[in-house]
Amino acid sequence: MKAANYQGGKQIEVGESAAIPPGAGEVRLDVAYCGICGTDMHIYHGHMDQRVSLPQTIGHEVSAVVAELGEGVETAQVGDQVAVRPLLFGEAASFDKGFSHVGKNMKFIGIDRPGGMQSSWTVPAYTLHKLPEGMSLSHGALVEPAAVAVHDVRLGKVKPGETCVVIGGGPIGLLVALVAKVKGARVILSEVNESRLSFAKELGVEGINPLTQNVVEVVSEMTNGDMADCVFEVSGSGPGAELMTELPNVRGRIVMVAIHPEPRPVDLFKFFWSEIQLIGVRLYEECDFDEAIELMGEGKLPIDSLITEIAPIEEVQATFEKIDANPDGIKYLIHCG
Amino acid sequence: MKAANYQGGKQIEVGESAAIPPGAGEVRLDVAYCGICGTDMHIYHGHMDQRVSLPQTIGHEVSAVVAELGEGVETAQVGDQVAVRPLLFGEAASFDKGFSHVGKNMKFIGIDRPGGMQSSWTVPAYTLHKLPEGMSLSHGALVEPAAVAVHDVRLGKVKPGETCVVIGGGPIGLLVALVAKVKGARVILSEVNESRLSFAKELGVEGINPLTQNVVEVVSEMTNGDMADCVFEVSGSGPGAELMTELPNVRGRIVMVAIHPEPRPVDLFKFFWSEIQLIGVRLYEECDFDEAIELMGEGKLPIDSLITEIAPIEEVQATFEKIDANPDGIKYLIHCG
Repeated sequence: MKAANYQGGKQIEVGESAAIPPGAGEVRLDVAYCGICGTDMHIYHGHMDQRVSLPQTIGHEVSAVVAELGEGVETAQVGDQVAVRPLLFGEAASFDKGFSHVGKNMKFIGIDRPGGMQSSWTVPAYTLHKLPEGMSLSHGALVEPAAVAVHDVRLGKVKPGETCVVIGGGPIGLLVALVAKVKGARVILSEVNESRLSFAKELGVEGINPLTQNVVEVVSEMTNGDMADCVFEVSGSGPGAELMTELPNVRGRIVMVAIHPEPRPVDLFKFFWSEIQLIGVRLYEECDFDEAIELMGEGKLPIDSLITEIAPIEEVQATFEKIDANPDGIKYLIHCG
Repeated sequence: MKAANYQGGKQIEVGESAAIPPGAGEVRLDVAYCGICGTDMHIYHGHMDQRVSLPQTIGHEVSAVVAELGEGVETAQVGDQVAVRPLLFGEAASFDKGFSHVGKNMKFIGIDRPGGMQSSWTVPAYTLHKLPEGMSLSHGALVEPAAVAVHDVRLGKVKPGETCVVIGGGPIGLLVALVAKVKGARVILSEVNESRLSFAKELGVEGINPLTQNVVEVVSEMTNGDMADCVFEVSGSGPGAELMTELPNVRGRIVMVAIHPEPRPVDLFKFFWSEIQLIGVRLYEECDFDEAIELMGEGKLPIDSLITEIAPIEEVQATFEKIDANPDGIKYLIHCG
């Protein structure tokens, strides 16, 4: 019964995980695995200290087994293997227009509330998505990031036969590329890390290194001048924000997946000239979790290849340090059981 | 038979308009009125000298009477009163995805080819849109700018009951505001010129002056915190590009109508956080001309109020100078007959 608690200053201590009895509409989970996300790394680096109350149990990419049901819960049973959609919905605001996943009063479990990197975790029953028979719990921990990618590709309106360029090949960029491929698109990845480019190639995704190649020229050659129908900006970098407007064809879409902490110079003329669009995307809706589970259940995403390492919760500090030191890694899981 | 020919260096000379016999698929028009557009002012100021061959007959907001039919023309008759959609379609490129109005090989008549500020003008028959019975030819010259606004509002997917903010209240901004109103939206105009704000108010459009008011706060008050469903950036200014991301609510749209000659700092985080969208728009499609004519024919747009002055073609130079000196004016027409 352990918990990984962020203490500030790049310190994550292993403490006790209390088994909190589930209230009405809640369930208590025995957590199996919890993935480490880019957001967890941001928290670890102290970039979100103004938002996170210390100490805080982090983690939100969770697979678990239902251990205990609170009053009135009829949508889950003890023993169910589940993934958790870590969104706590507050009061709906008309500003939100029904999109509660990005609503004004939404709280993110694992940032604003204690997360799932602990043995025992109590959450609202509405956060649960049942895993299909035969899906391993280690795979189940990747449902959350896969749902991000499904959401991004869905809002990007990717159609079969289209050409997509993904700028940035970290875990989310790779998953976006893989989901877009499943949707029948041709996908080209722009990524500065050669090791990640090679890895993407093994997964069947063509790559370009913007440090050594002219991405616009190469995409033009690869597409006979047709360029990209959809560009995913997942790098969060200034060069990414510059590149994104150079790639779309007429009415092409740019999907803004990344967090850009500061305003970037953007070539707005390109939007006018070719009627391109920029589509902001964040997190996921219920249907995205359902679809991620479906794609993973059908074996359409190479989840095994994406798991770099699984470490016991006792080694959580060392694992965060390892991720910092190894830019080639993809997905690290913490075993919380 | 006169023509207004741009000579470079803010000089527009009145020369002869040759009656060019229409070739196959073409028509010769007796031009009635030609409006002066912001683009004409850009040409006049020399900002488009690299694109415009000198001397060039300018003008593209035209109403006319069909004078002569070329071989094979069956879609028009001599005597028809028409507006002209001034786009010359070249070979389609797959890059264009069928959107020929912003296609790679589209040429704009009045910039890339001789325009309509002349007594006699020969154009392809497919550019013509017949004006309804009873519409005056002076009104007909406003079909083109009205079609721009119809296109922008259509691509902005404005729905009845939505709140729109239009940033920039020049002729196109005003028309966008008026068309959005016709579509049932509540429209708020942000405009720095008090005279234009008063004029907009006379037309029933609420206004805010960003030089003296905090637009974000005022829009929030006016909407009880619901903010804007759709923002039209028509100012082309740095402050406009900054303001545009501050106004939309969740999944709100920003429609990029303006030409921003240089990259602007844009708060990309806002796109991510509230899943907002930026939609580039340019010119119009056939259906937009049809709808503009329909709205004008039904008297739904206050066209008379938008016409500041009508001048004979002999006074074209003086009229361009007057527009430069009078930022309060809306639409000036040149009588070319």
